Amino acid sequence: MRESSAGGLCKHEDMRTQRGQPFNAETPLAKLGCSFFTPTELFYVRCHGEVPEIDPATYSLGLDGLVGRPTRFSLRQLREDFPKTEMTATLYCAGNRRKEMMEVSDMPGKVPWGAGAAGNARWGGVALRDVLHEVGVGDEARHAAFVGLDRDEESGTRTYFGGSIPVQKALAEDVLLAYEMNGETLPYEHGFPLRVLAGGYIGARSVKWLSSVTLQETPSDNHYQAREYKVFPPHLTAETADYSGGRMLGQIPLNAVICAPGDGETVSGDELTVRGYAIVGGDRSVRRVEVSTDGGSTWTEANFEDEAQPAAWRFWRATVGLDPGRSRIVARATDSASGVQPRHAAEVWNFQGYANNAWHGVEVLRNA
Amino acid sequence: MRESSAGGLCKHEDMRTQRGQPFNAETPLAKLGCSFFTPTELFYVRCHGEVPEIDPATYSLGLDGLVGRPTRFSLRQLREDFPKTEMTATLYCAGNRRKEMMEVSDMPGKVPWGAGAAGNARWGGVALRDVLHEVGVGDEARHAAFVGLDRDEESGTRTYFGGSIPVQKALAEDVLLAYEMNGETLPYEHGFPLRVLAGGYIGARSVKWLSSVTLQETPSDNHYQAREYKVFPPHLTAETADYSGGRMLGQIPLNAVICAPGDGETVSGDELTVRGYAIVGGDRSVRRVEVSTDGGSTWTEANFEDEAQPAAWRFWRATVGLDPGRSRIVARATDSASGVQPRHAAEVWNFQGYANNAWHGVEVLRNA
Repeated sequence: MRESSAGGLCKHEDMRTQRGQPFNAETPLAKLGCSFFTPTELFYVRCHGEVPEIDPATYSLGLDGLVGRPTRFSLRQLREDFPKTEMTATLYCAGNRRKEMMEVSDMPGKVPWGAGAAGNARWGGVALRDVLHEVGVGDEARHAAFVGLDRDEESGTRTYFGGSIPVQKALAEDVLLAYEMNGETLPYEHGFPLRVLAGGYIGARSVKWLSSVTLQETPSDNHYQAREYKVFPPHLTAETADYSGGRMLGQIPLNAVICAPGDGETVSGDELTVRGYAIVGGDRSVRRVEVSTDGGSTWTEANFEDEAQPAAWRFWRATVGLDPGRSRIVARATDSASGVQPRHAAEVWNFQGYANNAWHGVEVLRNA
Repeated sequence: MRESSAGGLCKHEDMRTQRGQPFNAETPLAKLGCSFFTPTELFYVRCHGEVPEIDPATYSLGLDGLVGRPTRFSLRQLREDFPKTEMTATLYCAGNRRKEMMEVSDMPGKVPWGAGAAGNARWGGVALRDVLHEVGVGDEARHAAFVGLDRDEESGTRTYFGGSIPVQKALAEDVLLAYEMNGETLPYEHGFPLRVLAGGYIGARSVKWLSSVTLQETPSDNHYQAREYKVFPPHLTAETADYSGGRMLGQIPLNAVICAPGDGETVSGDELTVRGYAIVGGDRSVRRVEVSTDGGSTWTEANFEDEAQPAAWRFWRATVGLDPGRSRIVARATDSASGVQPRHAAEVWNFQGYANNAWHGVEVLRNA
């Protein structure tokens, strides 16, 4: 096993460790806002167990279930027998911004993620669909289930972490089996030697330390597909929920986050530049971001720094007037299908604390 | 020209005429809620000009622009030389529920649609992609532009109505050139002899009385693509907007509408069944509908009457307790990517009054 500490994993000293064991760390928003591509050493890490140490020479990936020819591929075969595919994609933790939801009503035992459990990278690897076409996709296949080599320590099941995506998504062009991140070998904590990268889906479906891909008729029955990473209605709790219900998370919800200024920052001058990221999964794109300093009565439209591209976030920037004293600044995004964000986390509260996409806000103090 | 009146067009006497000339009528919500498939005589009608009378014997459809072989097809060729494709799809007017937005701030000259400018039918015709593959799709093609045979009378341009969809959508399985509606020949007012049916897109892109399909690098420059059916930020007005900006509407926004009880209805008993439709376009599906009788503090989850299927609405039903006196009942939907509806129309107000998807509400009086 690798040491599961920020030091052992070569993470930047500025990373905010959420848990040491299993290792979970998020990126400070000020750092996240520095670039469209998140440097690997600053990239958030979400682990449900210890980081497994895997020998790439003996590693192999299994493809089974409703496939034409069940097959195992060595890492070398995956790298040499298939075309290399590259993709820019944002990984986004379904629990991002849970902390604000916990302020509505507590969620004991849950990782209190701020808004830094997201990052964007250039990924290199093999298109999953190339591999699936090689082994043959059965007519009955509806879901592609992934299993990792990391044993879950959070839920107490001690089974391997896993999850699934619809087979239609598995055959889309934006799903990779990635062995490179930002032009270098995939780091241990990000899934070395091979991970899924399902563009536009919540991070949990991009299973790390990938052991197998199974085509099947139903979604994965892994704990993290069947019980966690689900959204339940607001009136249900951990005690009252029927875990066979709820909605399995998939596409990343629409969100806009203010990276600068920071919450609680002191600023000067009567104008302030507000900057952050915005994202949405699926076949939509972020089309507008607005910023308000009066609680949402009036809005200033932000400019985008990047073109919209599938599976990646966009950075935006707006300049607003600021009165002396304390101000609360909020941001909201609109997508290409007129999707909007809810005003307050209470509107989307759920007891597992997923998919919080309420208007994001920061408080600043302007010196007189 | 056909007579543009409800009588001449064989519409049901219960239809609510919004405009006589051009003919525009919506379905009373009580009627809309009667069935998953909307009867043709109750199906809403949106026209921008007079209904053209077209001789099917001499009619032909042109395919041109960035195609391999510009071609004209007679109606007989379309019916006999291509496989017949059927699809269930909901047509949804982008101006549906504009009336509530007009109560926030008026929009002179706009049709004050209630929530009945939507309907669901079984459509039969030719898959657009079958026709496009027959004539060949140029590498540079990015949009499929449609032109109808109806002359626009609303904007004063007197040009033909038109619009476009991305070529990727034009090649998807849910775009038809429809010549049948609910198992019968397409009626005059719904586009006889041939109309586009772009599943999951706003109704305006499903151009009626289709004259031509042009593949091109840019969206249609037709008035109704380039200036209307666009969403502008809330601070802009008809006078201040730069019409080259704004966002062209495409996918249907997430919405839930209460069909019963009706607004202003008097009811009895301490329990009330609330029923309505919910819809979302694109690669999402409606996953939850909730009803509140206390302004959104607590919610009752509705049950769906239908399975989710692409491009079609879902009916839902919830039973809630009701105190004597007046109550306001609101409904909201959540989609498969955690998309939610805004609380109030003011949050999404835009001067052309499109895509209102705020929580829908009705007021009822319970007899003591």
